[in-house]
Amino acid sequence: MKVHPRCSYCLLSRVHLEAEQSTDDEELMHKAIIGGIEVMNSIYRPGMPAAELSTAIHRKAYAILNDNDPYRKMKELSSNTAARFLPVIRSHVFNGDGDDVATFKRAVLAAVIGNYFDYGVMGLDVPIDVFEDTFREHFRRGLDIDDTDRMLDKLSNVVYLADNCGEILIDTLVFEIIKKMGGNITLVVRGAPILNDVTMDEVKEFNIGEKVDRVLTTGSNAIGVCLEEAPQELKEALENASLIISKGMANYETLSEESYSPIAYLLKVKCDPVGEDIGAPKGCSVARLIE
Amino acid sequence: MKVHPRCSYCLLSRVHLEAEQSTDDEELMHKAIIGGIEVMNSIYRPGMPAAELSTAIHRKAYAILNDNDPYRKMKELSSNTAARFLPVIRSHVFNGDGDDVATFKRAVLAAVIGNYFDYGVMGLDVPIDVFEDTFREHFRRGLDIDDTDRMLDKLSNVVYLADNCGEILIDTLVFEIIKKMGGNITLVVRGAPILNDVTMDEVKEFNIGEKVDRVLTTGSNAIGVCLEEAPQELKEALENASLIISKGMANYETLSEESYSPIAYLLKVKCDPVGEDIGAPKGCSVARLIE
Repeated sequence: MKVHPRCSYCLLSRVHLEAEQSTDDEELMHKAIIGGIEVMNSIYRPGMPAAELSTAIHRKAYAILNDNDPYRKMKELSSNTAARFLPVIRSHVFNGDGDDVATFKRAVLAAVIGNYFDYGVMGLDVPIDVFEDTFREHFRRGLDIDDTDRMLDKLSNVVYLADNCGEILIDTLVFEIIKKMGGNITLVVRGAPILNDVTMDEVKEFNIGEKVDRVLTTGSNAIGVCLEEAPQELKEALENASLIISKGMANYETLSEESYSPIAYLLKVKCDPVGEDIGAPKGCSVARLIE
Repeated sequence: MKVHPRCSYCLLSRVHLEAEQSTDDEELMHKAIIGGIEVMNSIYRPGMPAAELSTAIHRKAYAILNDNDPYRKMKELSSNTAARFLPVIRSHVFNGDGDDVATFKRAVLAAVIGNYFDYGVMGLDVPIDVFEDTFREHFRRGLDIDDTDRMLDKLSNVVYLADNCGEILIDTLVFEIIKKMGGNITLVVRGAPILNDVTMDEVKEFNIGEKVDRVLTTGSNAIGVCLEEAPQELKEALENASLIISKGMANYETLSEESYSPIAYLLKVKCDPVGEDIGAPKGCSVARLIE
């Protein structure tokens, strides 16, 4: 996905958010913003990949803040919240009617909704009854773009690109049903902390390795997947996959610039530029397959 | 008011808004954004007056867009909407209980609510019943900071700094009651188009000159009041006023950097930095007197 004028101010607002997460020093917050402005001033150009800009800006901000993981607390909160509600979500997915195919579709929907919860968009500290209601409402609404039927014959060797902390626990429901259906799963997480994305730390903390066949990393803290920084075995896994499942906007932004296929983008549309690019307005639940 | 980290991305979002108002050319929108980034890169520093940055950024954007008034249509819409609802608002102000003092207080409240309506925050195209309900709701809530009592003995020679189109028509209700109470009014509008602010064009279009004793301008299209660009007679008027009434955030941002007094800030708080500075959260109706 190419950079959109909106990305400029969205990125500065993210820099401010991570500065606020990392420090109370107003002067340091200004410095992080100025760092972001400097990066934009030197590399922003129409037509550039959005993630090239965002990776550079976040790296600069992390360096100025002298903090390699400003989202530490936010990630913990996401993980704890998802862990708390996982049994409820699990029962929505596995205790419904129908066969494995129906369960797979429900698991994908839950995982897409999980992509929405992470950001604090709907709040992570909602009481259990409100959380359940909100999840139920999105679950009832279903997928706005639903290509899950066309994914069914492609589950033998899945590469699953994770997005955020918290959300990953809901993703395990997808892993579970794919395994039950006979599929193989390579999970891919970030090589180092960036935003509130999953790394090997959370994989270990929640024993997620046990639920898949293999775990790889993107090799760096780049936004999404930066192939220049990716290990060879990840590139091979992407080439050989029967299906790549890509969670969230950052993976979409980067992989939509590449030619791997078939690839299923599972995400909640959280901004207009991604919405325009993928063809669904903000708020939509998307499971789009590109073959 | 000093620049806040938030101003950086808010300003770029305004540049994008004015670019979208001015053109359909995506490339030109990018150029306007890049212009804003360049300005920030060269002059943004902690502790600088917020308006110094915003004036420079908007001037650069207008130059790149080759458009001296990108808000043309939005201003017309504001004016037309306010003109349409003015009789209703007028009846809220003048048909209430009590004496001139009570009417003055209601007129100030209506003018503060007028500062909220302009931005499209609550939409300018709402049907008449919704508009009325919304106005009524804010009117019932009243002022969150109310120093109007302390303004009453200072109305003999008022300098009234206008803010936005549309809103200015509601301001005329304040002019009317001040005149009835024996006061003199010097109205000040922008010297040239900037954002959706009032200029002499709207003063003439709506015969606003007839409702006050004198109309001056700020001498330029600077955000708020830039004294370096202001005519001598404006500076004298500000020095000699029995009360300066300053509408909106841009006038607040600039005059809070100066020492003129007494000065009454009438505004709806529309952003956190102004809210923190003036001591009232976003959404509040403020009539704060500084003596």
